[in-house]
Amino acid sequence: MNALKIFSDTLLAPQVLALLKEGVAPHEILLPDKPVTSVLAKADKDPSFGLADIAFGQPDLQSVYESEKLKWIQVSSAGFTRYDTAEFREFAKSRGLLVTNSSSVYAEACAQHVVAFMLAHARKLPMGLKSRVANGASEWNALRQQSAVLGPGQKVLILGYGSIAARVVELLKPFDMEVIAVRRQPRGDEEVKVVTLEAVGEELPLADHVINILPDNAESVNYFDASRFGRCKEGSVFYNIGRGTTVDQGALYAALKNGPLEAAWLDVTVPEPLPDEHPLWTLENCFITPHTAGGHRDEAGTLVRHFLGNFRRYLQGEPLKDRII
Amino acid sequence: MNALKIFSDTLLAPQVLALLKEGVAPHEILLPDKPVTSVLAKADKDPSFGLADIAFGQPDLQSVYESEKLKWIQVSSAGFTRYDTAEFREFAKSRGLLVTNSSSVYAEACAQHVVAFMLAHARKLPMGLKSRVANGASEWNALRQQSAVLGPGQKVLILGYGSIAARVVELLKPFDMEVIAVRRQPRGDEEVKVVTLEAVGEELPLADHVINILPDNAESVNYFDASRFGRCKEGSVFYNIGRGTTVDQGALYAALKNGPLEAAWLDVTVPEPLPDEHPLWTLENCFITPHTAGGHRDEAGTLVRHFLGNFRRYLQGEPLKDRII
Repeated sequence: MNALKIFSDTLLAPQVLALLKEGVAPHEILLPDKPVTSVLAKADKDPSFGLADIAFGQPDLQSVYESEKLKWIQVSSAGFTRYDTAEFREFAKSRGLLVTNSSSVYAEACAQHVVAFMLAHARKLPMGLKSRVANGASEWNALRQQSAVLGPGQKVLILGYGSIAARVVELLKPFDMEVIAVRRQPRGDEEVKVVTLEAVGEELPLADHVINILPDNAESVNYFDASRFGRCKEGSVFYNIGRGTTVDQGALYAALKNGPLEAAWLDVTVPEPLPDEHPLWTLENCFITPHTAGGHRDEAGTLVRHFLGNFRRYLQGEPLKDRII
Repeated sequence: MNALKIFSDTLLAPQVLALLKEGVAPHEILLPDKPVTSVLAKADKDPSFGLADIAFGQPDLQSVYESEKLKWIQVSSAGFTRYDTAEFREFAKSRGLLVTNSSSVYAEACAQHVVAFMLAHARKLPMGLKSRVANGASEWNALRQQSAVLGPGQKVLILGYGSIAARVVELLKPFDMEVIAVRRQPRGDEEVKVVTLEAVGEELPLADHVINILPDNAESVNYFDASRFGRCKEGSVFYNIGRGTTVDQGALYAALKNGPLEAAWLDVTVPEPLPDEHPLWTLENCFITPHTAGGHRDEAGTLVRHFLGNFRRYLQGEPLKDRII
């Protein structure tokens, strides 16, 4: 077999690039003129892309349409908005093009991030870490009273059931809350009760914790609008570690200002970061991290090892992990 | 049987006091002239104490020694420093005095608080919530790189194995870390490997997470001193939800400033709160909540229901819950 050419557009540290090169040898890595500095960015068109059998990173959509050799794309993020269209799915099918993503790489970190959000909120960490109140003072009693525990009698609704949600379900098990997941197409192998998007309207008024992991696509834009926030339970908490586009931020602001939401914890917004003058920054019950939920030590190394695992499967004709198309 | 007199020194909201009074009826609640405003405070001597058969709260030690009628004390906190002496144990034994505490009331909240600390640290929440960095910026990549996950290969050492530690062990199970607990007298019914205090020196250099839940007593004062912090693993994190007296805060400062500790998360200090000029406030890797770990909604209600459960057991001659002496 001729050496395969793998186009890798992510800017990698020298030792991680070496890991990738050694891992694919004798096959060859093609590097673009202008590497991508973030797994959330999009690559520019690059002259060498047309030579590639495989693309690993954030390939430019037009370049993919024009490529004649390409057989497999592994997207370096969990999100895959650019490729999540009927048109692209049709194209990939007609060309026999495989598409995988890297959701396994981020699932553990994302799941722990949202559980960190839930516990930080319950235990009032943002307030506690700023407070220097004395034992027995009325502010101290108030802070203790506002603190809560996650536990029986509380209901968690997770929108978007993939590898992240499955791990959230595992991490939440010891807290003994009722967990319900929403999935476009329930498969029957989920660890919890799963409902379709049509049932969300009935579930929202019952949920104490709403975890949004919906992907960004044509149907999900502004999914959480005034009507859906309006159906949320009084005092419930909204968490978003999916994509910012799935939330109407004006409606979120209103739901935080006037109820029914007690608080929101967001890792994603539109845009990222929110401009300094954005009204969400003015709310004391809105907590925002800058799209770091998937981040973790040696993330690039994990990303490359995940690709190399799939590359081995590809060479041996085995099913690829995290296949999305 | 004559009506029993129960001295209750905690300041309770009217409806919680009503719950207590109705719960013990036809037995009688005695209230002090000066109620205690916090479960961490100590009651003053009160003239009616001598009439009590049972004391619920934070009874004055001298009054207990002088009382002739007292049969049972239920301390309203988890800590019981005042009574944790050989002299008092001897006295209680000779008098047939039962002593229980309220650790069940705080165990769930305390356990969730320390797991909240662990996840907030791993996910770098304090930094992330302050940051407005843009995707792909070098500060953003740095923040993602510094973020971590709790997981296999990491070791957790818990000092003090009681109801809080047992619950921490349950909550940490899905993270699949190795957990080792330290207990003065291992009983054999613990869910994890348990070692005695003598083995701590060998375990400290191996632990990535050190959770201190040691109670405050004569032996535990400054237990974490320069020598023990010096044995901690480079990059390990220290959590304290026990009592501030168990830590030499000067030694902690040095271990945070010069290593080996990566960070400390404290719910307890000496004094509480630390004065504004205390050096620990100047460290970016020291995170402090104001003794709120055990706090939760309807805490006073839980406290009273826990007492009423034990009161029913007391009347029926059953073993009391959370018995400490």
